[in-house]
Amino acid sequence: MSKQYWEDFTPGAVIEYGPRLITREEIVAFAAEFDPQPMHLDEEAARSTMLGGLAASGWHACCILMRMSTDSFVLNSSSMGAPGVEEVRWLAPIRPGDRLTLRTTVLETRVSNSRPEMGFVKFRFELVGIAGKPVMALITSLMMGRRGEGRAA
Amino acid sequence: MSKQYWEDFTPGAVIEYGPRLITREEIVAFAAEFDPQPMHLDEEAARSTMLGGLAASGWHACCILMRMSTDSFVLNSSSMGAPGVEEVRWLAPIRPGDRLTLRTTVLETRVSNSRPEMGFVKFRFELVGIAGKPVMALITSLMMGRRGEGRAA
Repeated sequence: MSKQYWEDFTPGAVIEYGPRLITREEIVAFAAEFDPQPMHLDEEAARSTMLGGLAASGWHACCILMRMSTDSFVLNSSSMGAPGVEEVRWLAPIRPGDRLTLRTTVLETRVSNSRPEMGFVKFRFELVGIAGKPVMALITSLMMGRRGEGRAA
Repeated sequence: MSKQYWEDFTPGAVIEYGPRLITREEIVAFAAEFDPQPMHLDEEAARSTMLGGLAASGWHACCILMRMSTDSFVLNSSSMGAPGVEEVRWLAPIRPGDRLTLRTTVLETRVSNSRPEMGFVKFRFELVGIAGKPVMALITSLMMGRRGEGRAA
């Protein structure tokens, strides 16, 4: 597939990618390094927490989402990254053995005022479980290079 | 230090923790696993990007912040986690060799209406470089158990 530029993202478009299997080993390894709370490290300790059993750190979910988005389309696009994230929602626990699909929805696009060679594409990214229910969602705007660097085509 | 409950977090309070040294090895290892874009993987390729040189993935910065917050106070508190994040801002590149301090500011607190045994504490978390300038910031509300589970003291 040819490289995707700002012009190629149309509001309403949906891109699906996956599924990816989530393993106990990666949940525990991530938690040990970045989020060593009992509910992400140990089944027994996790049972008495709000999550009711071992579940991935919310930040691990964000990282899995990022990796799936790079593999889905970001690496093959003119993305220059993002200045931040508008919101992150952790909607349901992510358990060992879950198979998650990335659903990317283009929400809106606009050209940069200060840098006409690029634009912003606002996306909703969702990790969706096998039952079709989102387990997490985030909204962010990627800076994307324009085709022909924004010169009139 | 004794365990901290919802009541122990006072709006305006500031908690500092660190610094932590950021290494080239951890920047590249994280990127290879979760965010394999050239600006996070390779000095030469990164030079021509918006970041102007190798810099940590923004998600890596979030994970470092999470780990510093657990070591700072979260593990020694009645935190039950967070339903999400209100906003994340990546303000400046994080480079190999940077030493970052975590600055945690208590913004506001409220008791849960539906679950009086807990409350919410809204925090601003910032990773601050050696020059005192924040390189990233995020706002999130942690669910915290109340002392005596909210029974009148």
